[in-house]
Amino acid sequence: MGIPKLVIGNKNYSSWSLRAWLILAKLDIKFEEIQIPLFSEGYQEKLFRYSPTGKVPVYIEDELTIWDSLAIAEYLAERYPTLLPSDFKQRALARSVSAEMHSSFFSLRSKMPMNCRAKDRHVESTEELTNDIQRIQAIWTTCRNQNRKAGSWLFGDFTIVDAMFAPVVFRFNTYGVECDSIATEYMKTVLNDSDIKRWYEASKNEPEIIEQVEVGLN
Amino acid sequence: MGIPKLVIGNKNYSSWSLRAWLILAKLDIKFEEIQIPLFSEGYQEKLFRYSPTGKVPVYIEDELTIWDSLAIAEYLAERYPTLLPSDFKQRALARSVSAEMHSSFFSLRSKMPMNCRAKDRHVESTEELTNDIQRIQAIWTTCRNQNRKAGSWLFGDFTIVDAMFAPVVFRFNTYGVECDSIATEYMKTVLNDSDIKRWYEASKNEPEIIEQVEVGLN
Ligand SMILES: N[C@@H](CCC(=O)N[C@@H](CS)C(=O)NCC(=O)O)C(=O)O
Ligand SMILES: N[C@@H](CCC(=O)N[C@@H](CS)C(=O)NCC(=O)O)C(=O)O
Repeated sequence: MGIPKLVIGNKNYSSWSLRAWLILAKLDIKFEEIQIPLFSEGYQEKLFRYSPTGKVPVYIEDELTIWDSLAIAEYLAERYPTLLPSDFKQRALARSVSAEMHSSFFSLRSKMPMNCRAKDRHVESTEELTNDIQRIQAIWTTCRNQNRKAGSWLFGDFTIVDAMFAPVVFRFNTYGVECDSIATEYMKTVLNDSDIKRWYEASKNEPEIIEQVEVGLN
Repeated sequence: MGIPKLVIGNKNYSSWSLRAWLILAKLDIKFEEIQIPLFSEGYQEKLFRYSPTGKVPVYIEDELTIWDSLAIAEYLAERYPTLLPSDFKQRALARSVSAEMHSSFFSLRSKMPMNCRAKDRHVESTEELTNDIQRIQAIWTTCRNQNRKAGSWLFGDFTIVDAMFAPVVFRFNTYGVECDSIATEYMKTVLNDSDIKRWYEASKNEPEIIEQVEVGLN
């Protein structure tokens, strides 16, 4: 088997890319990173060379192509079972919150786009946005309360669920979202993680600026 | 173990409910169906009694609650492995298209809401809607082309992927979407299925009408 490839967008902006990248980083397996800056000249054509959706992330293993971050996560969790909780009830919870994250939170996503390196941004609060923020914290509380004795990730040790929520941690950090104590503690776990720090440092060094995503400056 | 419960919304309108229901129906296991008509007086309060998201479907097995249709699908696929293709590459494809369905197709969802019993509806075409419709057919073609010799579901035998796309088949049927031959053939497989027919018949007998979902009449 050749070295797997992961096609990603800008580290600063591409939330779905971060999910897949973080899982691979945590697995400590070698992979080739192919970066295509989003909205750059001809980026879509380049993306379609790798994936039928023209979206990142894309994971490529020899002739096998997996697009969509959650599918990549489930594929890797089959191969590396520690990426999901070992207890079947905890695994069911892990999948409920991962699939919920995958299909919801439209307000959070559109109003607070991921912009890792940005700080002190502020956006207008709406009822939907507040609901999204509260629901996220309720999810983190549920997971943490059932897994307190182990490590400090959502299910103790790192799982795919942490990858699903890592972009949210960056969002909360950028837009100064006020958090309850469990969420604050969890955000520290994520932001102090060495792989997350590597991603963050790389995002700072990227020259590209996507204007329409630079919101909340005033 | 007690009989599992499935909380669903209106059969006529609730696309995500259909996914979970169809999987349980195909497994031929006994389950109790709890129906809460969406947007009826006090429906949200009732939903929150079952799920922290206040959404359907919810699957309940003794004290285990799983919300979100894709999480329910993955949970059941662990228990009943025939719900996913047995080949790991086909399984990766199954997960790519399921997760893509779960997180995308916003135009299709908003412009062509599921309304099982309705026929001859027509909505204005937009570029996004056309793209969604074409991408769905491309997905079906990819799956069918790799699984032609077996049965006539997307991966031969019925899998969770068919549950993910069954609501789309109803949408295409209601809004008279013109399909290529593979899609037409696949739609017949779905619409002629005995469980789908049971769902459809039940949808016709529901008295509730949700006005804002009744689009495309003229
Ligand atoms: N459901 C997909 C979503 C992927 C997605 O939307 N990626 C964005 C970047 S974060 C993208 O590629 N956008 C490029 C474009 O839309 O042209 C996943 O989870 O991988
Ligand atoms: N991602 C969820 C979505 C569930 C969902 O949005 N369900 C809709 C009905 S199809 C609902 O419960 N709506 C009620 C409401 O929003 O008040 C899933 O796949 O189960």
